[in-house]
Amino acid sequence: MFDFVFHNPTKIVFGRKQEESIGEALKSAGMRKVLFVYGQNSIKRSGLFDRIAASLKRNGIGYVEFGGVVSNPVISHTRQGVELAKREEVDAVLAVGGGSVLDEGKAIAVGAMAADDVWNYFTGKEVAKALPVFTVITLAATGSEMNGNAVVTNEATKQKYNISSLLVYPRVSILNPELTCIVPLNYSAYGAVDAIAHVIEGYFTRKAGSQLQDRLVESIIKTVIDTNNVIMKEPDNYDARAEFMWAATLALNGLTTAGLKEYNFPNHMIEHSLSAIYNIAHGAGLAIVMPAWMKWYSAKAPARFERFAREIFGVEGAAAGINALEEWFAGIHAPIRLKDANIPADDIGMIAENAAALATLWGIGGIYSKEVIVDILQLAV
Amino acid sequence: MFDFVFHNPTKIVFGRKQEESIGEALKSAGMRKVLFVYGQNSIKRSGLFDRIAASLKRNGIGYVEFGGVVSNPVISHTRQGVELAKREEVDAVLAVGGGSVLDEGKAIAVGAMAADDVWNYFTGKEVAKALPVFTVITLAATGSEMNGNAVVTNEATKQKYNISSLLVYPRVSILNPELTCIVPLNYSAYGAVDAIAHVIEGYFTRKAGSQLQDRLVESIIKTVIDTNNVIMKEPDNYDARAEFMWAATLALNGLTTAGLKEYNFPNHMIEHSLSAIYNIAHGAGLAIVMPAWMKWYSAKAPARFERFAREIFGVEGAAAGINALEEWFAGIHAPIRLKDANIPADDIGMIAENAAALATLWGIGGIYSKEVIVDILQLAV
Repeated sequence: MFDFVFHNPTKIVFGRKQEESIGEALKSAGMRKVLFVYGQNSIKRSGLFDRIAASLKRNGIGYVEFGGVVSNPVISHTRQGVELAKREEVDAVLAVGGGSVLDEGKAIAVGAMAADDVWNYFTGKEVAKALPVFTVITLAATGSEMNGNAVVTNEATKQKYNISSLLVYPRVSILNPELTCIVPLNYSAYGAVDAIAHVIEGYFTRKAGSQLQDRLVESIIKTVIDTNNVIMKEPDNYDARAEFMWAATLALNGLTTAGLKEYNFPNHMIEHSLSAIYNIAHGAGLAIVMPAWMKWYSAKAPARFERFAREIFGVEGAAAGINALEEWFAGIHAPIRLKDANIPADDIGMIAENAAALATLWGIGGIYSKEVIVDILQLAV
Repeated sequence: MFDFVFHNPTKIVFGRKQEESIGEALKSAGMRKVLFVYGQNSIKRSGLFDRIAASLKRNGIGYVEFGGVVSNPVISHTRQGVELAKREEVDAVLAVGGGSVLDEGKAIAVGAMAADDVWNYFTGKEVAKALPVFTVITLAATGSEMNGNAVVTNEATKQKYNISSLLVYPRVSILNPELTCIVPLNYSAYGAVDAIAHVIEGYFTRKAGSQLQDRLVESIIKTVIDTNNVIMKEPDNYDARAEFMWAATLALNGLTTAGLKEYNFPNHMIEHSLSAIYNIAHGAGLAIVMPAWMKWYSAKAPARFERFAREIFGVEGAAAGINALEEWFAGIHAPIRLKDANIPADDIGMIAENAAALATLWGIGGIYSKEVIVDILQLAV
């Protein structure tokens, strides 16, 4: 095992109706006024907004509403949130929604404590201060509820970049699996793809790791697959929703990568270009990129891919494992080719150029040149 | 999955030579003077004491030495530590050693901030304040480096009881696998038994759980077994020591029990009486208790025991799985019967009476009466 630091101070409160305790959590953390960040009006229609507002009122927590976060959140809207947070002098950010809402909430928390433009922190400047972040998550997918990552797109430059800081780990995240039952089924599928993507990046790319990490990753993948097989048939199955939700959280909370050596995130890197340019769901983009990347990469780590095939799908050989994953994606109605998401094959050069810029920022430009990314994307045609 | 709260704020710093960074960690946490708690003189002979003292000096951290913690730490010595911590007005406790040292360190941290006797917090009084705890652990076993538990024995009453509080989770724990290489091999074996015991309690006794929790538990057990098989042959194998160390930490950091319903710790309950009365190593006691308890309990949860047999040892049937575990314990030179630890079968009634008192304190006296515990211990004759 490689040296590592593991520090995840987020408090997870998991279970039915737990969102009603958010006011109490804020109060006991000494908060008095929050920026209440959310997405579209679905949280008002479902009654979630009112339940949370009532919890805030019961505990004397003031709030300023800031709705309108979109899937693949954008920097222009983030900047509006930063201005509002500063003007209203809130103590904290309360983000209620899916991963996009949480990510934008974290970015606002950073921007609200900075004198300069928040985008600077996505392009390399280290985060020095941030408002405390609290979350109620409504979708199992991104792991944002228990990590320090936030991904936001700069619409002007078509860059989908990220912040990563201990300062934006949520203080408290509420996970009520019931809230995920109202999400459309295709978003559950995209969430499943996303959670799998989070763990396989390290699993396949690390130079050295451990049996323990391998087993943790396999435990998470098998659970994501089993639970989503149930969810596709019984969308309201609480136990399946709950297990999937916790698996998705563990998939990107630092646990599966602690002790790995030199791993990287090529699938996310390429996918960020797809969702930045075409505004498709992140999980949908990953379902397209992953099988292609795996076909391109498997010869570089054959033993890892053979293990994956055997442990996850009980089949022999790298190709059989990749095919099984691809078929599973298709079976839960995720797109697996560029055309499934209406992305023209003619755009591959332009997509690869965008992704290569991110590869350079992430320090893997030496492996992932524009030409290599073109080769990978050709496998998704 | 059952509702749960998961909150583990401990920062783990893992890797070679990391103990040399402890002074910096204390300084950046604002500490200026610590109670340096340790066990016997082995940490002086090995040079570990000097390396840590040098790290403290480099960072301007004063320290007061408090050595002499024994395996199965005792309340009389803990009280001396409390007095010293109060008199010297230290800011924090720095515990350097195995689980016993960490546990006594945590107890001192509680006692130092209390006006009354520290034993009160072992018999049910809630911890309200504690000094911050920092640790450097030298043995993979107890998980004390990443949880809020501390077990101490009251020699006068022969009670081995515990504190459990968020306030004594270590702020920072340094895990350098190299430090575990100097521990005698039988202690590595006891550590392996202890780590397995930590995860099987919930695995077998929970009323409801999840596939994910089962898989996490099985991942940890398989890793403990595989790595110790290597360690027995190659005591200096860094990778095996490292993987075992991290597996032992994850075995009792809350991860494997999050979401379980109504689980309990009968093996630990019974073992506490063995080590309280006979002062044997906790892991040695567990190796005796576990096979006996499993034989007694397996008919109550046959499907769980069949799964255990299949997943861990690749054998069919509850009895075969229990036998395989027992044989593995014997193979790493752990005692598996009372006589192996020179405990007379005639004492069983007295041991059971002691354990039944703890069963009552832990709220499982309804299941574990003195008579039942006698039945279990008879299976260890």
